[in-house]
Amino acid sequence: MTDRYRIAVLGASGYTGADLVRLALTHPRIEIVALAANAKAGQTMAQIWPHFAPYPNLPVLVKADSIDFAQIDAVFGCLPHAASAELLSTITGPRIIDLSADFRLKDAATYAAWYGGAHPAPALLAQAVYGLTEFARDALPAARIAACPGCYPTAVLLALLPLVAAHAISADNITVNALSGVSGAGRSLKEANLFPEVAEAVHPYGIGHHRHMPEMEQELSLRAGRDVRISFTPHLVPMNRGELVTCIVETQHGADYLREVLADAYTREPFVHLLPAGVAPATRMVRGSNHVVLNVFADRVPGRAIVIAAIDNLVKGSSGQAIQNFNLMFGLPETMGLEQAPLFP
Amino acid sequence: MTDRYRIAVLGASGYTGADLVRLALTHPRIEIVALAANAKAGQTMAQIWPHFAPYPNLPVLVKADSIDFAQIDAVFGCLPHAASAELLSTITGPRIIDLSADFRLKDAATYAAWYGGAHPAPALLAQAVYGLTEFARDALPAARIAACPGCYPTAVLLALLPLVAAHAISADNITVNALSGVSGAGRSLKEANLFPEVAEAVHPYGIGHHRHMPEMEQELSLRAGRDVRISFTPHLVPMNRGELVTCIVETQHGADYLREVLADAYTREPFVHLLPAGVAPATRMVRGSNHVVLNVFADRVPGRAIVIAAIDNLVKGSSGQAIQNFNLMFGLPETMGLEQAPLFP
Amino acid sequence: MTDRYRIAVLGASGYTGADLVRLALTHPRIEIVALAANAKAGQTMAQIWPHFAPYPNLPVLVKADSIDFAQIDAVFGCLPHAASAELLSTITGPRIIDLSADFRLKDAATYAAWYGGAHPAPALLAQAVYGLTEFARDALPAARIAACPGCYPTAVLLALLPLVAAHAISADNITVNALSGVSGAGRSLKEANLFPEVAEAVHPYGIGHHRHMPEMEQELSLRAGRDVRISFTPHLVPMNRGELVTCIVETQHGADYLREVLADAYTREPFVHLLPAGVAPATRMVRGSNHVVLNVFADRVPGRAIVIAAIDNLVKGSSGQAIQNFNLMFGLPETMGLEQAPLFP
Amino acid sequence: MTDRYRIAVLGASGYTGADLVRLALTHPRIEIVALAANAKAGQTMAQIWPHFAPYPNLPVLVKADSIDFAQIDAVFGCLPHAASAELLSTITGPRIIDLSADFRLKDAATYAAWYGGAHPAPALLAQAVYGLTEFARDALPAARIAACPGCYPTAVLLALLPLVAAHAISADNITVNALSGVSGAGRSLKEANLFPEVAEAVHPYGIGHHRHMPEMEQELSLRAGRDVRISFTPHLVPMNRGELVTCIVETQHGADYLREVLADAYTREPFVHLLPAGVAPATRMVRGSNHVVLNVFADRVPGRAIVIAAIDNLVKGSSGQAIQNFNLMFGLPETMGLEQAPLFP
Repeated sequence: MTDRYRIAVLGASGYTGADLVRLALTHPRIEIVALAANAKAGQTMAQIWPHFAPYPNLPVLVKADSIDFAQIDAVFGCLPHAASAELLSTITGPRIIDLSADFRLKDAATYAAWYGGAHPAPALLAQAVYGLTEFARDALPAARIAACPGCYPTAVLLALLPLVAAHAISADNITVNALSGVSGAGRSLKEANLFPEVAEAVHPYGIGHHRHMPEMEQELSLRAGRDVRISFTPHLVPMNRGELVTCIVETQHGADYLREVLADAYTREPFVHLLPAGVAPATRMVRGSNHVVLNVFADRVPGRAIVIAAIDNLVKGSSGQAIQNFNLMFGLPETMGLEQAPLFP
Repeated sequence: MTDRYRIAVLGASGYTGADLVRLALTHPRIEIVALAANAKAGQTMAQIWPHFAPYPNLPVLVKADSIDFAQIDAVFGCLPHAASAELLSTITGPRIIDLSADFRLKDAATYAAWYGGAHPAPALLAQAVYGLTEFARDALPAARIAACPGCYPTAVLLALLPLVAAHAISADNITVNALSGVSGAGRSLKEANLFPEVAEAVHPYGIGHHRHMPEMEQELSLRAGRDVRISFTPHLVPMNRGELVTCIVETQHGADYLREVLADAYTREPFVHLLPAGVAPATRMVRGSNHVVLNVFADRVPGRAIVIAAIDNLVKGSSGQAIQNFNLMFGLPETMGLEQAPLFP
Repeated sequence: MTDRYRIAVLGASGYTGADLVRLALTHPRIEIVALAANAKAGQTMAQIWPHFAPYPNLPVLVKADSIDFAQIDAVFGCLPHAASAELLSTITGPRIIDLSADFRLKDAATYAAWYGGAHPAPALLAQAVYGLTEFARDALPAARIAACPGCYPTAVLLALLPLVAAHAISADNITVNALSGVSGAGRSLKEANLFPEVAEAVHPYGIGHHRHMPEMEQELSLRAGRDVRISFTPHLVPMNRGELVTCIVETQHGADYLREVLADAYTREPFVHLLPAGVAPATRMVRGSNHVVLNVFADRVPGRAIVIAAIDNLVKGSSGQAIQNFNLMFGLPETMGLEQAPLFP
Repeated sequence: MTDRYRIAVLGASGYTGADLVRLALTHPRIEIVALAANAKAGQTMAQIWPHFAPYPNLPVLVKADSIDFAQIDAVFGCLPHAASAELLSTITGPRIIDLSADFRLKDAATYAAWYGGAHPAPALLAQAVYGLTEFARDALPAARIAACPGCYPTAVLLALLPLVAAHAISADNITVNALSGVSGAGRSLKEANLFPEVAEAVHPYGIGHHRHMPEMEQELSLRAGRDVRISFTPHLVPMNRGELVTCIVETQHGADYLREVLADAYTREPFVHLLPAGVAPATRMVRGSNHVVLNVFADRVPGRAIVIAAIDNLVKGSSGQAIQNFNLMFGLPETMGLEQAPLFP
């Protein structure tokens, strides 16, 4: 008899799936039972991932439909959108922690508009909890499906939700500029993601229409009590991991007051840290860890402030938050398996 | 008798000075007569710079005060602020192309407020032309002093001046997010600029108070006909060169109209290129060259647009623009010595 | 009537082809008449390359077989091996500068053994001159086909040929370790070349069997007067461009003597520079330029020395050398179009 | 009463000291009691290190001489050479794990020749155990001082010691080429280590005279039973962490036999992994972890083989090995606190 929960990871050939496995490997109450990656079924993690070379004994990759889910306690879905909901909707036993976009949006019509197709399993939307852990603690323990937020929404919402909920900032004219490392683009074969196409340069993308916008607006609107629309421009920067969001907000209050609001919101949080006044968040503060750092600065323009947050897009922005949600869903200490200190340099 | 203009470069031990020399080396009407770098006087460029290893015969570095300026046609000042004006104000013969901040601001009081000390030579401010070439063609030929703009102002002003002048965008609520490579920080010994401190991470800096703000606001206010204050947040990204500015603006017009305004402004420009609709500017489009790429995108929020520009901070943002100004000051074709195509990958 | 030679570039969608175009753009005696890239025919260079965004008026890409070669003076072949010889063998008018491996090896059997297939046009091998410019000046002016060496052979042979020819080092026990930037791997879609797979790490590849070995051994054997076999281990490093070879050689002489031999060999060379004693070659000394830096150091082990050379793999290692050969083939000054100073930082 | 060993880390303001703290933070039997960094005494780790921003409650940095060593069980010395021995020789109570070079060499005269000064505490040399853990298990449990090897020696010796001890390779003509990330150069303020001086380029350094050579030769000579001298050329590559050594060796045996020897040597090792035949070691396989990957390849030259090993220079090459040695010295499971999986991408 084991005291470990048996998990399956679907999409173990992608960066989020791999980081899920990395974290699960040292989680004391997780046993990795099945790893699925349809296109690479039959290979091992050591064969498809350089950093699992020291771990040749992980389960061999299989096709998802060959897994006996009756033996599984929790399924982590790291599949592309649509494919995720299609597959996960067929799984009835285990609890689901989905890292795709498929269960984040409450409204199936919004999903269809942004993701280019009807939602494969709209009936399940009601069962899903938007898994921004710090704001979902009440709902997660009983959740059948935890829908882990996108990496950008994680950082933006952690930075802004307490401020919006406290009516400390306006829900209008929120402007977000985001920077992300390249792992956020996934491991798919695209010329634009080849090393020489990326290194030593930056560029914006998804300008005005990035898919993370509806979920950010969904959550902000919820707290604001009305429709919120934000300006959001992501940029790709030549680094593997890391994400930084710079939010220009309108406020009657000064930066100090906004810092107090965030301090109150996060003072007991194990992973969310308000930095000392004047210290700029940097992605190197949290690399490889589930930590979040944020701060508020006065803007030169009166009536505005600048709220900045930094995370690791693969950890708190994805797989670390998934483990964090798993912990709550299974009644474990929330920080279990997520104690890694950030890696620097 | 030579048909080359004799130049001196002050501050040849900094990145902008070095790039000035790089460009001057292949300029057909420039002869590099003197290179000054007080702390490294007596050494050669090949000794202090890796990329001048193939050029062991450049003039040996000297102290600035040992130069016989009567023999010089043009002095390029690549010194730190204050030191620049102090020294340049003693030079009466040659024409001056200054890359420091010292002659950019018209108002000596503003200079004092932002640069932490009284202006060393306020009497010269009136002689200086703000050297944003595309907007200074009338004044440069007769200018005694060309004050080359800062790297961030170059990109921001090229992106916004035509739009402000045409009243196509509001002069209010301009929000700029900027990204820059590390050469922008200079070659000074700071722990924060060591490779391991920078690589594989990003962070914002100078939040709300970057020194480039007053000159951007000076020029925008001039075209707007009233005081303009902008929000400006720069970020350091792990690359050597490159700069990208993302400007969120308020407008009654669509992105297409703003593109037309920029097209009109720049259609005959050799260095400023409006990209095809939908193509995102990227710093890799202009690396090592004097080119500028820009574009306008619709924002998701009604009444807004996103104007983006990319340059090489050391070339069009600094030394390339200096050469461009020099060409106009000396009646040479504006593109002379600046024909290098961008380097990629 | 034009005084420019009309060129066609085949394989303009690869990194070497693109760098060929970059250099040709500012060559005063070259007119780019045709650019071929079969898979991308119909697109423009500005569409497929970020750095040609400022050059929207280059010839539209076409299929190679649609070019009227009667109108072409010189064809630059930047195609993969085998494809190169197949196509180039059908072109009878223009002179050919081939950047592929197809015409480098004198022996068709060696080619077959290393490149996995019979040589498509063995009859042409005799017409080809091995285009290591500094050693091919006599043959190039009349050459029908210049076979530009591989990037690694360029650096290794420049470092060692004078020493072998002067019998200053042993032809036995030559051990080479090489480092290369990622552009050397080409622009093909391979998971291993995605940014996150490369950045922040190094690894060796082609261990003991890299395809550049036969041509290095061919040329070394020629000068040694007997068969030479070398040890060669390349490594991929996380940078776009650059190549450094570290050669451990056996010698009765000291490092100083070997430096003298190299000094004699290269003293009048415009592109090959022996660094001052004790100065380590670095790829940042030559980035983006056709320059080569090299040096010799004493090894701790008696009877050995360490010869090191650095180049830009796309320039002197490929397209710059191609232009250099073109210049000689067409009676132009050898440095024409190759005066760019290295780019740093 | 605590069941944690109380440690002091001297030199917590350097990269190895910081990584020691990172690992110690999650070690279940370590309590960090004192952190010393003389120049930064009075500051906190969160103030001097970005990645300790989430850990504001670590002990405040103090001067080493203010520590009451009677309260300390183990001292980790992460100081520069000479300074290390000077200070550590005054500490009599705790056991010492030294990461400097000061106690690695058995012969004080060799130390003086290579480190530029007489050894500050030669009497202690006999008490020191050369802490290459896999080869020091017998001696470590009783060791007063564990002298952790340099990063390069760690990788080279792990790759070669079993082969030399088994007389499977010649002790002559061992040629090593090494690649290292920039953290190996330390956090000191040197122009050469500024980001723009390093990024996008490589160069060799310490050619023929790197200080790690005597300890590599000491250990190889010990196993060979005679004096061994090796050729060793390190190179700096633009990455933060990682180290790869490529060793060309002479052997009568094939690569397969050498693989068998290494397999026998390391089959039960938790941290040293012989990769499957044909798989090249890569630093991305072990980033941020205490793992080591190695392999052997046939060389093209008969009678030779290529042995390659990759480590993280700060972990197995320094602080991870220090913790590994600590575990043995204090009777703890050897892998305790070192279970982190490598971080990728």
